[in-house]
Amino acid sequence: MTNVRIYVTYKESVFDPQGDTIKQAIHALGHDEVADVKVGKFFDVQLDPTKKDISTAVKEIAEELLVNFNLETYEYKVMEEV
Amino acid sequence: MTNVRIYVTYKESVFDPQGDTIKQAIHALGHDEVADVKVGKFFDVQLDPTKKDISTAVKEIAEELLVNFNLETYEYKVMEEV
Repeated sequence: MTNVRIYVTYKESVFDPQGDTIKQAIHALGHDEVADVKVGKFFDVQLDPTKKDISTAVKEIAEELLVNFNLETYEYKVMEEV
Repeated sequence: MTNVRIYVTYKESVFDPQGDTIKQAIHALGHDEVADVKVGKFFDVQLDPTKKDISTAVKEIAEELLVNFNLETYEYKVMEEV
């Protein structure tokens, strides 16, 4: 089995209201060292590479389910073999 | 400025209902190569290291705002200087 972490973020051009709200809350707590906050999701997916090629599986799962390509983009990283 | 990515996940002992639901949906799409799915959030935080030490700032922000330590745990990674 292979652990893959798929990161989903808003596209650069899309406003991130949750990140903006968190930034304001952080500033309200006095943390003026924080300049910006963006929020994203990740999915730790355990895959069997003997059943399907990792990059093909990730691409299919992202396109079919995990990513809204109108607003979001994704990248992934192979984390470890287990 | 330094970009830090803070990852927040459920503790190992905590059931992840969203991950479980996504796993079922992935299986319903025919992806039997997927054995497990866990969901997490991340925060890309841009920090000014001249105002506060990075590890101190991350610890404070995590404890004061981003992480529910009853259910969640976190780790972080310094991504890049900008």
